[in-house]
Amino acid sequence: MTGISDHHVVIVGGGFAGLYAAQSLRRAPVRVTLIDRRNFHLFQPLLYQVATGGLSPADIASPLRSVLRRQRNVCVLRGEVTGFDALGRRVWLGDEGIQYDTLILATGASHHYFGHANWEPLAPGLKSIEDATEIRRRVFEAFERAERETDAVRRQAWMTFAVVGGGPTGVELAGAIGELAHHTLPQDFRRVDTRQTQVFLLEGTGRILPVYDERLSRAAVESLGRLGVTVRTNSVVTDIQPDGVTLCRDGQPEVIAARTVVWAAGVQASPLGAALARATGAELDRQGRVIVAPDLSVAGHPEIFVLGDLAHAPQPDGRPLPGVAPVAMQQGAYVARLIARRLCGQTAPPFHYRDRGSMAVIGRSAAVAQIGKLRLRRFPAWLVWLFVHLMYLVEFENRLLVLLQWGWNYLTRNRSARLITETPKSRDESPWPALPARQRLPETAASRSDDDSGERQI
Amino acid sequence: MTGISDHHVVIVGGGFAGLYAAQSLRRAPVRVTLIDRRNFHLFQPLLYQVATGGLSPADIASPLRSVLRRQRNVCVLRGEVTGFDALGRRVWLGDEGIQYDTLILATGASHHYFGHANWEPLAPGLKSIEDATEIRRRVFEAFERAERETDAVRRQAWMTFAVVGGGPTGVELAGAIGELAHHTLPQDFRRVDTRQTQVFLLEGTGRILPVYDERLSRAAVESLGRLGVTVRTNSVVTDIQPDGVTLCRDGQPEVIAARTVVWAAGVQASPLGAALARATGAELDRQGRVIVAPDLSVAGHPEIFVLGDLAHAPQPDGRPLPGVAPVAMQQGAYVARLIARRLCGQTAPPFHYRDRGSMAVIGRSAAVAQIGKLRLRRFPAWLVWLFVHLMYLVEFENRLLVLLQWGWNYLTRNRSARLITETPKSRDESPWPALPARQRLPETAASRSDDDSGERQI
Repeated sequence: MTGISDHHVVIVGGGFAGLYAAQSLRRAPVRVTLIDRRNFHLFQPLLYQVATGGLSPADIASPLRSVLRRQRNVCVLRGEVTGFDALGRRVWLGDEGIQYDTLILATGASHHYFGHANWEPLAPGLKSIEDATEIRRRVFEAFERAERETDAVRRQAWMTFAVVGGGPTGVELAGAIGELAHHTLPQDFRRVDTRQTQVFLLEGTGRILPVYDERLSRAAVESLGRLGVTVRTNSVVTDIQPDGVTLCRDGQPEVIAARTVVWAAGVQASPLGAALARATGAELDRQGRVIVAPDLSVAGHPEIFVLGDLAHAPQPDGRPLPGVAPVAMQQGAYVARLIARRLCGQTAPPFHYRDRGSMAVIGRSAAVAQIGKLRLRRFPAWLVWLFVHLMYLVEFENRLLVLLQWGWNYLTRNRSARLITETPKSRDESPWPALPARQRLPETAASRSDDDSGERQI
Repeated sequence: MTGISDHHVVIVGGGFAGLYAAQSLRRAPVRVTLIDRRNFHLFQPLLYQVATGGLSPADIASPLRSVLRRQRNVCVLRGEVTGFDALGRRVWLGDEGIQYDTLILATGASHHYFGHANWEPLAPGLKSIEDATEIRRRVFEAFERAERETDAVRRQAWMTFAVVGGGPTGVELAGAIGELAHHTLPQDFRRVDTRQTQVFLLEGTGRILPVYDERLSRAAVESLGRLGVTVRTNSVVTDIQPDGVTLCRDGQPEVIAARTVVWAAGVQASPLGAALARATGAELDRQGRVIVAPDLSVAGHPEIFVLGDLAHAPQPDGRPLPGVAPVAMQQGAYVARLIARRLCGQTAPPFHYRDRGSMAVIGRSAAVAQIGKLRLRRFPAWLVWLFVHLMYLVEFENRLLVLLQWGWNYLTRNRSARLITETPKSRDESPWPALPARQRLPETAASRSDDDSGERQI
């Protein structure tokens, strides 16, 4: 807290990258302004638990002001950045300009429908709290509809779920829905047997979890099968309707009559990447991510950094770093260190990502994990997954309660947060109301990127 | 579970009255169908905690199916009752008719704006989870706006809150907002001092908590004052605008520049009361409640009962029983017993309410309580309040966590569930978007009923 200079660091985005950058600047002689349009930091890796009723939104969201309350050199500002003035070193919040000396942009990514924007209301993605409570509403509503449906075919359609995308998010969601149907809900319903539920996990490539070791993909298929999840590989979704999904599977069309479809297939960068590119001439990749230098700065603008899911940071092999929390956190800490060194007239080596491993959880007691040369499956992998996630969570205040909630859910197979809130506006034609419109990137930025669908690493 | 007969009890509404009726019928030789349009039972007395970020919605809502899963003679049906066929003994869910032998109607009450429906979007009430998260959004959003506002007058308007109605709900909300501003938030903001917040509690009659002992009203005013809450009695709200409230106070007009107004002043019965009256010829009182016989049945229809906030059950002194949870619970248990006795050819004495006392909580360590001849204030009353509410909560599964959350909040003065979710659609003209339209009673049913504004009893 000694010697706060006038150097002003503006951080846009309070996700893993932005928050870790702000926290890592706590001893640096700078003023920090952290801008986010939400008032909380979201622990995205557990969002699937909110979507399936295991945790409440507040369990995985920490108010930014609360997390940073003791760090006196940070000012949190809730607002939506609308553009940049790279020459004048300002970010715009509407017509209010905020001056910076260093800018850190870390506004992440959202889901992406490969040019099929009309699929969004039919198959919501899982990136925000609102997405999660919307999926939660649809999942539990589907069982309620099944209980009241007298026609057997229509009833089974309500009890059929399709998850599009076989990355970690898709695997975790499909596993949690299977767990719910087979272990949590059977006693709750009188007319339907929820164990008749079918969950389809649809993957366009030859195997789920394509970035993992092949043995782990097979282990995941096996663990999912025990929860009643059917994995369909080489299955490209060609259409989504209110009452089902059309696939092209090994060249053959197939229709799955599922009333509930969840999207976990594609991501696209925040539109602020394109706005920054317009202001600085920076290059974007096909997903709309900003291509950054080895020190994570933007070409020609050493005072502007892009981090996390919004950044395309090339690895030595030329491929970009994956869009996962550990990359974002390490980048946040790196840039904070770099800023502090620059203020002392020093330089720093390029950013180097230390890959500590990847993992995905399946239901309540199985997972797959690869850590260095180690390959773990089923219960041992689940224990490692639990330990790693709890370690992160406990860093934040009040997160011991999540552990207790979890322990309780584990022992009782209960899920107490399964509220259906907000009733749909129209019930007959389309089963679900349209979601609020999102800002979209120009279609040129659209591309198939299954590999990036929310991959999770340690 | 022995000898389930064909006698079918249909209960409409899963609040305190309906749920307790269903649970009390667990050993009766009947089939029970519990119909609710929501999938959860809500512990309404703690809704103000959700509205002020202390608890999550799922902490005070239990899925009905989960609460009743082990009671095999109950079938839960999620659906919205649209009307009654008293002659054919059916309730209508749209065009689906459900046959009953005994009907229990307990769909409660909602808030009421005394003919000023246009006030609803400006001053939301506190009856549902959605109401609570909407108030939570407005309260925390107001502090965010204050932090960004440069004009001192406008900033103070964002830091001014008006709560309309000095019954227990109003007292609890005003106390919780005061607590928040004076103890939870001061460290979180850098530009504004949240201790400058003003909270006005507006009451039309001569004192707050009018049904309590006068000494307790005075004690409440004192405890509220310590949390920065200003009580204005004899103050009738004559208008609500997006930027303030107009009062008539002792005949003089007064404007309070408050950007956030919460409504805790009037209640009106669920519109299903009027629908039942049309079907049976039952009489309604001025609040739209169904006037019931001493055994809680409807005149001419011994097989139809109305319970809880929807019922006007006359006491010996002619006044109706208050709309509080203990009345509803005792009525639910009474009617269940009556139904069981009737099936054995027996009768039962009229319903008699055992008043075990009333209480209202103020902030984190004060309350007022009257229990028989006992009058408690401040910390002792708060301890009693805590004990009574925890006793209720612990009856439901998983509610130990609420205790822990609370203990934590108490020790740290923290409120972790302060998420601002769902962004407003229009920001400039009206600060808040319109709430979803509610079904409203015909205006003839409108009447001033400050006394009924959510009074809380043990």
